[in-house]
Amino acid sequence: MDAHQPTDPGAPIWYIGNHLPTPDLTISGQTLEDEATQGYDMITTFITNTNFRSRINQILLNAAAEKRTHMKIDSLDAEEVTVHPGDHISQVIGFASPWLEFDSDDSLVSHVSKQALLYELDYAGFCGIGNVVISGPRRKENVSQFAQVINTVLSASGYAHLLILLPLAEKPSSAVEGDKYDEFSAWDTWNTIRTVCKYNSRLSLALQIPAELPTLHVMDRWFAEPIRVVLLPSSTFSPNPTGYPALSKNHQALLTKYTKQRPTPYILLSDQRAASEKVRYEPLSYLVYIRHLQKNQPPQSTVEKYGSGYQDYLQTPLQPLADNLESITYEVFEKDPVKYDQYEKAIKLALDARDAASNTVVAVVGAGRGPLVFRALRAAQASGRAIMLFAIEKNPNAYVHLLRHNRDTWNGQVTVIKSDMRSWNPPFAVDILISELLGSFGDNELSPECLDGVQRVLNPSGGISIPASYSAHFTPIMAPKIHADISSRKNDSEAAETPYVVMLQSFEILAEQGYIHRAWEFTHPLPPNVLSDSTALSGGLIGLGDGGNNHNARKCKATFKVPRRGVVHGLAGYFESVLYGDVELSTRPDTIDMKSKDMISWFPIFFPLKTPLHVPDNCELDVCIWRQTGERKVWYEWVVEAFARSGGQRYRLGVTDLHSSKQNGCLM
Amino acid sequence: MDAHQPTDPGAPIWYIGNHLPTPDLTISGQTLEDEATQGYDMITTFITNTNFRSRINQILLNAAAEKRTHMKIDSLDAEEVTVHPGDHISQVIGFASPWLEFDSDDSLVSHVSKQALLYELDYAGFCGIGNVVISGPRRKENVSQFAQVINTVLSASGYAHLLILLPLAEKPSSAVEGDKYDEFSAWDTWNTIRTVCKYNSRLSLALQIPAELPTLHVMDRWFAEPIRVVLLPSSTFSPNPTGYPALSKNHQALLTKYTKQRPTPYILLSDQRAASEKVRYEPLSYLVYIRHLQKNQPPQSTVEKYGSGYQDYLQTPLQPLADNLESITYEVFEKDPVKYDQYEKAIKLALDARDAASNTVVAVVGAGRGPLVFRALRAAQASGRAIMLFAIEKNPNAYVHLLRHNRDTWNGQVTVIKSDMRSWNPPFAVDILISELLGSFGDNELSPECLDGVQRVLNPSGGISIPASYSAHFTPIMAPKIHADISSRKNDSEAAETPYVVMLQSFEILAEQGYIHRAWEFTHPLPPNVLSDSTALSGGLIGLGDGGNNHNARKCKATFKVPRRGVVHGLAGYFESVLYGDVELSTRPDTIDMKSKDMISWFPIFFPLKTPLHVPDNCELDVCIWRQTGERKVWYEWVVEAFARSGGQRYRLGVTDLHSSKQNGCLM
Repeated sequence: MDAHQPTDPGAPIWYIGNHLPTPDLTISGQTLEDEATQGYDMITTFITNTNFRSRINQILLNAAAEKRTHMKIDSLDAEEVTVHPGDHISQVIGFASPWLEFDSDDSLVSHVSKQALLYELDYAGFCGIGNVVISGPRRKENVSQFAQVINTVLSASGYAHLLILLPLAEKPSSAVEGDKYDEFSAWDTWNTIRTVCKYNSRLSLALQIPAELPTLHVMDRWFAEPIRVVLLPSSTFSPNPTGYPALSKNHQALLTKYTKQRPTPYILLSDQRAASEKVRYEPLSYLVYIRHLQKNQPPQSTVEKYGSGYQDYLQTPLQPLADNLESITYEVFEKDPVKYDQYEKAIKLALDARDAASNTVVAVVGAGRGPLVFRALRAAQASGRAIMLFAIEKNPNAYVHLLRHNRDTWNGQVTVIKSDMRSWNPPFAVDILISELLGSFGDNELSPECLDGVQRVLNPSGGISIPASYSAHFTPIMAPKIHADISSRKNDSEAAETPYVVMLQSFEILAEQGYIHRAWEFTHPLPPNVLSDSTALSGGLIGLGDGGNNHNARKCKATFKVPRRGVVHGLAGYFESVLYGDVELSTRPDTIDMKSKDMISWFPIFFPLKTPLHVPDNCELDVCIWRQTGERKVWYEWVVEAFARSGGQRYRLGVTDLHSSKQNGCLM
Repeated sequence: MDAHQPTDPGAPIWYIGNHLPTPDLTISGQTLEDEATQGYDMITTFITNTNFRSRINQILLNAAAEKRTHMKIDSLDAEEVTVHPGDHISQVIGFASPWLEFDSDDSLVSHVSKQALLYELDYAGFCGIGNVVISGPRRKENVSQFAQVINTVLSASGYAHLLILLPLAEKPSSAVEGDKYDEFSAWDTWNTIRTVCKYNSRLSLALQIPAELPTLHVMDRWFAEPIRVVLLPSSTFSPNPTGYPALSKNHQALLTKYTKQRPTPYILLSDQRAASEKVRYEPLSYLVYIRHLQKNQPPQSTVEKYGSGYQDYLQTPLQPLADNLESITYEVFEKDPVKYDQYEKAIKLALDARDAASNTVVAVVGAGRGPLVFRALRAAQASGRAIMLFAIEKNPNAYVHLLRHNRDTWNGQVTVIKSDMRSWNPPFAVDILISELLGSFGDNELSPECLDGVQRVLNPSGGISIPASYSAHFTPIMAPKIHADISSRKNDSEAAETPYVVMLQSFEILAEQGYIHRAWEFTHPLPPNVLSDSTALSGGLIGLGDGGNNHNARKCKATFKVPRRGVVHGLAGYFESVLYGDVELSTRPDTIDMKSKDMISWFPIFFPLKTPLHVPDNCELDVCIWRQTGERKVWYEWVVEAFARSGGQRYRLGVTDLHSSKQNGCLM
């Protein structure tokens, strides 16, 4: 094996650094070149050396002798730093001095240490170092003091990212005597620090991987967090059969998982020369092994490939009724390899069910650029049924496109009509009405309202809708990166009450066994009395006017058991739909593979909470969600309550205020 | 007794209403006149009558027969309402129909009930009714659904206050079988409703008083909440020795306490004619008794008198260093009957300690309009010591006032000097330096910085400062009305990170036995090395420059045991000061009576939390607070963490982010 060999073009890009062990090595462009020759992408360095430490120690000794509780220190000296500005700086990760005790209970020590930290960060910023690692708090009792200092230095240091160095899990033996081992204690520390620091976007994690891995729950928990550095000490390696250092299967899986985060965390190898290790390998053999792993990463799934770049990226849902879509938007959706196959299957099944000699009127409403028209033609051919096919489209540009298609591709078999489906008035009845109006939460792009509006055209005896029904599903999740993004949008007071379409990546489902609740369902066509009653009356009084759309209001309350403590940042929403018969679509992570594997057209929806809700072990979450209907729009409201159970009784631990997307509702 | 006799001018103003029992009484100006003749200030009425109820019932029956889940209803009819606009409307409290079940699990019932409620509120608004009472939720499980409807109607109904009718305590027997009796369950319901409704300022309480009162904790809890109506059913009364209805001592105390709320809650008497009661009195005898109680309320305390109108009213602390105060501001402070007596005592004690033949140099720094100059002269006379008295004042207007005083009142005994105390350079040493620079949190108006700046003038051997020391004290509190006020200041992003001076009235100390923690102390004069070190070095580097004021930074962490669940809205802050010897000042509620009873110069300080922290029974709160010093200002930072104890171990339940008043810091 050769560390220099170019990696497979299909392999992921991993940046691997050498975590240098000595604080007295001065870093230069040459150091970087030497490391690059060996195959490293980056190196680490302490910002200051032992000269600085000696000075600080002397100051502390003198000041303590004078019984001082504070002491001002001078800034850094040329002989006290290990690094200087230069082109190589972008490949350097800085480490703040780990001996600084700015969370000390001794006010002299904490005062001097805080100044020293500020000098180090200020100098690192001057040099252009973009990432500085700071050792986590020494004492659990002092986490909030530690966090307060971090919050201060975050506002004092310019643009550098500060990475808090924490172990993936604390060793059971490190717990105070008499305490039960708490596998989430290191995560608790991190959660406190970043909460106190208001989810600052420049604050992230340097996670040290232990030789012995904790439960999967702990590893999944960290995956939801902003890991910027994964630190692999040589102690995590064991010899493989040929005597070279290798990682266990579990460690490999961890690395595969964590390197799926975006941005991809840097991997730092450390202690390769450590003499204290029982087994000692050639220092470079660790790097060679990690490069080998990199080349042999499992290939990306369809969804991963398609979603690349979209992970945890917030989009506001489409408003196809109010806006006309661009051609490129259609093109993106038409690329789905699964969705249109499912539609074709459903249409064929529906046609198969019809009398062989019949002539079936089929209409694609909201035909867009025509993918469903194409599938309907194919299904008709496959089933051997005669159809009259109509394509209804309100977007004038897509209409032109459909006309061209009909002339060039469909041999004029299709009647193309430019109309909003809700005002289309054909002189005949439609037997099969095909639409693709579903949003990430099923009904959130107003499919119910559109299909109500067009139901008039459907044959009252036996006319069917494809989709026949769809349902909305949700579950509370922890998603700190998304929360950080939303809470940084300070100038947008509605940001925290808007449902977003987002490819959820760094998140955790908090409910036991990943339970997802089915909220409500819509079926088409509706019984005629429901529809006529609603359209006949159209409200006027404030608060009552809903344009006769009452019957499309929904509400749902669900209880979720949460076994492990965490933070609720919002609700993940999915949908399922029965197109026809047993042909279904699903975006639920637990049913998508069974119902519509590799379907990529929809990312989940995310309903945020303005203020994260902290929940303890073994609690319950009650979630209420409403689909509200008004005269001109549809919106959602949601509220989350946390309960503890004690002695068979439930106690309310907290409740959010009512979140409402009314200001950003979907327009009809 | 006569209900008409004018009440004692010293008696509080109570508005007493007659809660009329029948929904079929139509209210007119004449009805009001009749009630007023009897001695009532107001009446209540249902907004709709049984005609409306019959219509709604019929609609529900028909719709249920058709298996509908929704049904639009028509607006109110002339024959369905009990009230019409008119001059009398300001004395009418409306009641929404208590039979409406908008929190029903049956979606038809909830849909129809919600429309009916909206019609009632809309009509009440049209008539000009300012307060509408709505019965609380029927089912505990549906509180958040109930709250969501209230939130909707709050935004739909114009300006009326909505009052949720709840019992002061639920009867133990009303608990579901097997459940432990939970004395806070009714409060829990309220807390959920107002949290979901975002502490809407138009949402308050109509509290029904039971015959059997719960623990004091429950009654205190409600006192912190916005009670707008106190409902006294006749069942709370028992016969007194002469056979007239009377309230128990505890009920009387409750009424005394609750009527101290501002605005004063309305008192509604109900069921005076109820035939089902064992004892039946003449209906008016209840009113006569309450008017009697009103006349016999205990007189207001000094603090109550002085603070009238200031209850729960937020003020930003003074910035006496940056601004010059107005004469009226001085006048308010000079009115304190206790504070200046204490200063005089302290000065006399300090003079007594000096040699009888000595000539003592006394300086009042920040003399203002001269109250301490006057007290120093009196103390000198009383102690028989000769003094040379200097009055230093930077405010040019107050300086003029001092000169006039010296000429007219003090016989030229005082040397008046116009100077900032920090730049005063006398050619002699001062023996006793007197100042009154304390703020509500002790050091928050920069007393430490000012006294540091003037310490140069003090005699290094034996010179003293009055005050000799002062300390800051705090405790976490529940204060929903104050939180509502702050969170309504939406355009001020700093509103929730500003410490306010406020006469705390509707609040509850959450800690066990009202524990208040002493945070830190300042003493004067400082040892010379502390001062010289600090002033010699003056920082330059960002984040480090603090103008040599490091030694006045402080931090404190304290743990508070919280026995009963609640909501933390912020920290109440107080101070204590040793002026000299055993002469002290205190604003702590538990020590003020011992140290400086009836002192009115300082209201407490309040450090808010941006987001209220819900805490369960038997939890612990860790509070960290910092006094931060910068080059040009001083500010506070604070963070609150909640913990549960289980099996001897502590689990973090939640943590706030770091609050900082840096943007609103006190300028030097």
